[in-house]
Amino acid sequence: MRVLGVDPGLTRCGVGVVEGVVGRPPTMLGVGVVRTPAELDVAERLVLIERGLEEWLDAHRPESVAVERVFSQHNVRTVMGTAQASAVAMLCAARRGLPVALHTPSEVKAAVTGSGQADKAQVGAMVTRLLRLSAPPRPADAADALALAICHIWRSPAQRRFAAARARAAGRPSTAVTPPKGSAHT
Amino acid sequence: MRVLGVDPGLTRCGVGVVEGVVGRPPTMLGVGVVRTPAELDVAERLVLIERGLEEWLDAHRPESVAVERVFSQHNVRTVMGTAQASAVAMLCAARRGLPVALHTPSEVKAAVTGSGQADKAQVGAMVTRLLRLSAPPRPADAADALALAICHIWRSPAQRRFAAARARAAGRPSTAVTPPKGSAHT
Repeated sequence: MRVLGVDPGLTRCGVGVVEGVVGRPPTMLGVGVVRTPAELDVAERLVLIERGLEEWLDAHRPESVAVERVFSQHNVRTVMGTAQASAVAMLCAARRGLPVALHTPSEVKAAVTGSGQADKAQVGAMVTRLLRLSAPPRPADAADALALAICHIWRSPAQRRFAAARARAAGRPSTAVTPPKGSAHT
Repeated sequence: MRVLGVDPGLTRCGVGVVEGVVGRPPTMLGVGVVRTPAELDVAERLVLIERGLEEWLDAHRPESVAVERVFSQHNVRTVMGTAQASAVAMLCAARRGLPVALHTPSEVKAAVTGSGQADKAQVGAMVTRLLRLSAPPRPADAADALALAICHIWRSPAQRRFAAARARAAGRPSTAVTPPKGSAHT
């Protein structure tokens, strides 16, 4: 299973590609950061994030995408940008028909370190060890993206069973978009 | 000047197209709502919003897009979805090279009613009058989108002067995206 992990952010969007299955050591296929300059308008920054993520999706062809779940309780000044960047990541993945999973920071920390309260250094150290790297990936956003991907590989068997049970119970929902009605008013 | 106003939301994304210039009565070219079902994953809903907004942009070819500015101080439960939907609206516009303007709800209310504290009914009534409609557009999200577009038409001459002055003072910022570095680690 090949997973693209995305740690969303307007200034730095961490990205990491990991291949693995439960019970075997995961392998890193790529890691990096999509950056956008703070001087640009948010709209232009979102276009650059989309372009950067599309390049990562094209280059690595992941089977699923794991994005950090954003909470509005966090830092009020940065949460909007994080939410907007995560929206672009979800959009890029779902547009290709790739399943998108959201994991909270605590779930990711617990998955890779055993503790939901682990700090950035502990996460970086465990990611380095699990992926057999020579040094922790920098910046921290890149390490967090790899941790997200590892978390997703390890959690996904349970999540798939849950999703299948939920789908059986509820039936598959349908999609609907109201088409433009403008011409009626022109 | 033709403006697409977008009142962002995951469940209902209000859209309205208005043509006008300062000092002349504005004209409505279209109004409607892009809806997505709550049963779908957020990622799938964002894809439907993108598709819906692209149809509106294709159908009406606006010269600019006005999106309601989202504040994180608002209702914590809905603000994330609003931020995500607004990100998709900004992305769709900026990807086409269209200028994107953000206006706060108070700015919009003040522009169309004269008071930043106006309620939904007052905004709907003024939109109906300004656009010479036979009845207020429903739902309220659709009326809000029209109000946003009107607000943008009326505010934009001042905003353009400000943006031009800022660009002269600072110089035009450049864009940058870090390309995938994955192959170096494979």
